[in-house]
Amino acid sequence: MENKIRKIGVFTSGGDAPGMNAAIRAVVRACTYYKKDCFGIVRGYEGMIEGDIVKLGARSVGNIIQRGGTILKSARSKAFRTPEGRKEAYENLMREGIDALVAIGGDGTFTGLHKFYEEYKIPSVCIPGTIDNDLPGTDYTIGYDTATNTAVEAIDRIRDTALSHNRLFFVEVMGRNSGYIAINSGIAGGATAIIIPEENMSFDDLYNLLGADKETNKKSNLVVVAEGSKIGDANTLAKMVAERSSYFDIKVTILGHLQRGGAPTYFDRVLASRMGIAAVEGLLAGQNDVMVGVKDNKIVYNDFNTIMANKHHEIDSESLRIAKILSI
Amino acid sequence: MENKIRKIGVFTSGGDAPGMNAAIRAVVRACTYYKKDCFGIVRGYEGMIEGDIVKLGARSVGNIIQRGGTILKSARSKAFRTPEGRKEAYENLMREGIDALVAIGGDGTFTGLHKFYEEYKIPSVCIPGTIDNDLPGTDYTIGYDTATNTAVEAIDRIRDTALSHNRLFFVEVMGRNSGYIAINSGIAGGATAIIIPEENMSFDDLYNLLGADKETNKKSNLVVVAEGSKIGDANTLAKMVAERSSYFDIKVTILGHLQRGGAPTYFDRVLASRMGIAAVEGLLAGQNDVMVGVKDNKIVYNDFNTIMANKHHEIDSESLRIAKILSI
Amino acid sequence: MENKIRKIGVFTSGGDAPGMNAAIRAVVRACTYYKKDCFGIVRGYEGMIEGDIVKLGARSVGNIIQRGGTILKSARSKAFRTPEGRKEAYENLMREGIDALVAIGGDGTFTGLHKFYEEYKIPSVCIPGTIDNDLPGTDYTIGYDTATNTAVEAIDRIRDTALSHNRLFFVEVMGRNSGYIAINSGIAGGATAIIIPEENMSFDDLYNLLGADKETNKKSNLVVVAEGSKIGDANTLAKMVAERSSYFDIKVTILGHLQRGGAPTYFDRVLASRMGIAAVEGLLAGQNDVMVGVKDNKIVYNDFNTIMANKHHEIDSESLRIAKILSI
Amino acid sequence: MENKIRKIGVFTSGGDAPGMNAAIRAVVRACTYYKKDCFGIVRGYEGMIEGDIVKLGARSVGNIIQRGGTILKSARSKAFRTPEGRKEAYENLMREGIDALVAIGGDGTFTGLHKFYEEYKIPSVCIPGTIDNDLPGTDYTIGYDTATNTAVEAIDRIRDTALSHNRLFFVEVMGRNSGYIAINSGIAGGATAIIIPEENMSFDDLYNLLGADKETNKKSNLVVVAEGSKIGDANTLAKMVAERSSYFDIKVTILGHLQRGGAPTYFDRVLASRMGIAAVEGLLAGQNDVMVGVKDNKIVYNDFNTIMANKHHEIDSESLRIAKILSI
Repeated sequence: MENKIRKIGVFTSGGDAPGMNAAIRAVVRACTYYKKDCFGIVRGYEGMIEGDIVKLGARSVGNIIQRGGTILKSARSKAFRTPEGRKEAYENLMREGIDALVAIGGDGTFTGLHKFYEEYKIPSVCIPGTIDNDLPGTDYTIGYDTATNTAVEAIDRIRDTALSHNRLFFVEVMGRNSGYIAINSGIAGGATAIIIPEENMSFDDLYNLLGADKETNKKSNLVVVAEGSKIGDANTLAKMVAERSSYFDIKVTILGHLQRGGAPTYFDRVLASRMGIAAVEGLLAGQNDVMVGVKDNKIVYNDFNTIMANKHHEIDSESLRIAKILSI
Repeated sequence: MENKIRKIGVFTSGGDAPGMNAAIRAVVRACTYYKKDCFGIVRGYEGMIEGDIVKLGARSVGNIIQRGGTILKSARSKAFRTPEGRKEAYENLMREGIDALVAIGGDGTFTGLHKFYEEYKIPSVCIPGTIDNDLPGTDYTIGYDTATNTAVEAIDRIRDTALSHNRLFFVEVMGRNSGYIAINSGIAGGATAIIIPEENMSFDDLYNLLGADKETNKKSNLVVVAEGSKIGDANTLAKMVAERSSYFDIKVTILGHLQRGGAPTYFDRVLASRMGIAAVEGLLAGQNDVMVGVKDNKIVYNDFNTIMANKHHEIDSESLRIAKILSI
Repeated sequence: MENKIRKIGVFTSGGDAPGMNAAIRAVVRACTYYKKDCFGIVRGYEGMIEGDIVKLGARSVGNIIQRGGTILKSARSKAFRTPEGRKEAYENLMREGIDALVAIGGDGTFTGLHKFYEEYKIPSVCIPGTIDNDLPGTDYTIGYDTATNTAVEAIDRIRDTALSHNRLFFVEVMGRNSGYIAINSGIAGGATAIIIPEENMSFDDLYNLLGADKETNKKSNLVVVAEGSKIGDANTLAKMVAERSSYFDIKVTILGHLQRGGAPTYFDRVLASRMGIAAVEGLLAGQNDVMVGVKDNKIVYNDFNTIMANKHHEIDSESLRIAKILSI
Repeated sequence: MENKIRKIGVFTSGGDAPGMNAAIRAVVRACTYYKKDCFGIVRGYEGMIEGDIVKLGARSVGNIIQRGGTILKSARSKAFRTPEGRKEAYENLMREGIDALVAIGGDGTFTGLHKFYEEYKIPSVCIPGTIDNDLPGTDYTIGYDTATNTAVEAIDRIRDTALSHNRLFFVEVMGRNSGYIAINSGIAGGATAIIIPEENMSFDDLYNLLGADKETNKKSNLVVVAEGSKIGDANTLAKMVAERSSYFDIKVTILGHLQRGGAPTYFDRVLASRMGIAAVEGLLAGQNDVMVGVKDNKIVYNDFNTIMANKHHEIDSESLRIAKILSI
């Protein structure tokens, strides 16, 4: 198998994440190292269908390891969900002689890649690149460490104001259906309460935790709310507290898209570098239709079904216990 | 006059701003230098009324120059707007022997201080501490430099995502009725358009600037919107563009309170240090009912009426012209 | 055993590391949670001997999770190496009724604690707090993640200049005898070569890697040198290259102590929080003379001999392989 | 005159400074705005001699406003100091039809440009780009604000360690013969003493300021030393204190080249943008052999002799006075 692969295509798909460029760089340089050609496919599946493909050499990816976003750009593609779209994509790859693929993205990206593999049997490996850290099969996804640090820096700033004014702040962080960014930025940000989709905290629990019924508790407090909260988003929860208690001066901040960008941390750059190399080495060793992961600090390859069966990266119950002790 | 003042009270009031601690430190150390006693009044006028006053020495303000927020806390006080409230405040000051005041805050703070001076003739100087840079009589207010840099860092992160996805982003920044943070974070962030209250840009102007009617302009764009925008806030403008044009993938981020906190820049620390010393030296030289300012890099003292007659720090028309040339 | 412990003393010792305050906070709050008294011992073993001990409650450690350094201060103590010194320390602890200890520091700290345990049998747990990540028994020490990010940010800045001038930069990073910070900041910083004490790279290897004998390679390059380098420090290596090759414009930067400070990353705050709680829970569960660690994301307790037998946290050979591929 | 200029060449020369890219961008876009062609000359005078010249359009300078360093690269050129070198440079410019020049750099750059102007009468404007802020004729040079903030961030980190260990730190900052970065990073960093070339502070003064002869003053202290110090560099001063006093645990950090890089602050981006536009508008309005400056927030054009007669940007004596009061 190894000898057959000669030209590897790499692309990013889905939401961008800091470290994607480090992963692209690693894929390209691993190709150079193993004397394979490497091609960048621009704007993910969309560019694959449109034939927007460029040759990449070791020097093309110089000075990008520290940049947020993705130099290959990303897009969501409706056309790739149709057989006609995928056919066109396949033909474009064949025209360039690309005989293996590395995709960098989340579960949507992997699902598309799996479908494509089933139909066209082109060897392919997915690298988990998403700030949400919501994929099983890997302890960390690329971008999660940076996004959590960005959230914590923002929370640190907000706490300055909370403390100066004895205010209650609700801060909403990203993560889609996962509470990973929330639980860890909450612990690191010294939050009084953390609302995540994985835990069954009722509004009453939150209300009690805030001591919202006692005047003596009119102090500064910070609540971190995961985007996927099942008991209401930050604005809703703030309104609910305000309706029931008059002891607080309440403010809300939705961190939003600034969590996606910025220079990646060392952790995300090294993780992305390892995964990029592992993707190429996996392909050369015969891996197909798998997602690279890092478990207990070791590279693993997960097949599609294992990932999709779980579809969620569970949060350690330890984290919840710790958060509770620390907010005493 | 100089010899009469013996005990100076210092407090922060209104919204917190990075650099307030550096100003407090400078006031306290200038008092030590000139052998005057210094007292911190906690939570502004509210603490003045409640008698929440602490003695401060040169060592009490060690290791705070780099901290956001205000160690003296801040609050808005309804009671101070009543004659009874101010009487109580005055009596508390007298009890401690405080015979001069330094207030750090915005126009609301200065207005309260002026009223108090008219009634009780206690020598008082105001230091402009607000991120909005909305006060005449000074080229810069404390906190503005830091807040603008915080906004620019956030915009830099957002641009990573905008570029990766060819998206149109509306980013709303703070500033109340002033467009200062917006115009400068917009120029520095490479915005395509900047919406500020001081300029008469219509929605149609914005729409044309974005090239929203041409498919060829479906590229990444960034619009910075001042909080005080007169043609709609970020969400409204985004909705209006989306309704009229189908060429954009539009996202909105409201930066919010994270702009208020964080370690101050060197500029805000030095500005706050200069103003804190100038406030004490002004008092000792007989200044009353004035606001310290820095004009053309020189310390000035502005009387209350001059500040309130203008009530706005105008934006140089140069800035608008520059923004236009750069977004070509 | 659990029921016997009533008063826990906590202290920091050796070089300071970002996250130490988060660990102190976690120890204090875990004590509150388990209804134990907590005492802070100032300046490590030195303060133990001098009886510099303060009561700490849950509120004493508010707003410190984000601060670098250690609020309990740290010191190296010669007196504690003498039996008399340790006797005095013990008597001071007894006077306060302190019946268990949590030390936060590196191998020197643990060695002192072990000696003390052997003599006085006071239950004690060590938390690994050092930027060097040089301890076996834990995948990460507190402060390492932050220090590596600080090094990478500095390298990013230096690379701007290196690229602008086509220069060769030697950047020396901390780590004592360990190459951890160097290898990971080197990979993340896109270094051409990384010199660590764990690897046998000769000067000739380095010279060849730089392509120093060919004019065509007169491009910008970055070499990261670990403090513990066995083939010469950054200045020496720079001089050696300059003597043999005239193709480079060479500069040297020793990052130095700025790597120790700064707000800890989310990772170090969460790690420190987990370890702080685990130290208290370990003591209550009967652990003695052990060091807390996190292996494969799970809390472990290592006895003294296991740690001291190895005395080094080995660097994964994978890292070296990856660094080589990436610098192609 | 205005109508005659059709093609403007822009280049960076001397040490790189954050904000140079923002200046390049502004020059290019102002050219587009005024319908002039713009050419980038790579590696300053060196590239001018070698004919390394590229056409630049408004889109060529997208997404660079936030980047440190210079995309046009910089170099010091010996050849340009010879008549032959300048002749070759002139011929290359003529070949491209370049009939005006914008140089971004320090006094060396301006000197070269002046010589060139005298010989070949090619209209030329210099933009002050240097972190040193050592040029008369402008309140601020491009890069100074960023470099000072970088120094202050480093000092903040170092202070964490200084406070944790009660240490005395000597921190050396850049600035060549100017004390600007030192005095302002010293004030903002809360330094006990600041050594700059512009002030006559003796070693004895420093020694007394540190209270080095009294055991009671064995506390943490920070001394900021300008690169151009006339009483010894940081290492020398540290050694001198150590020889005379045994009360300190002394460490030294030389910040070095990391002060040159990094994303520019909003201030430097806006300053660079204004100056870039002013350079082009100046050329079109007939300015020759001048340096753009900003005095009291207004654009000015300084002729060569005015700049070179002073050759130094004096430090306000106020700064020294303030530093003294604050370190009480």
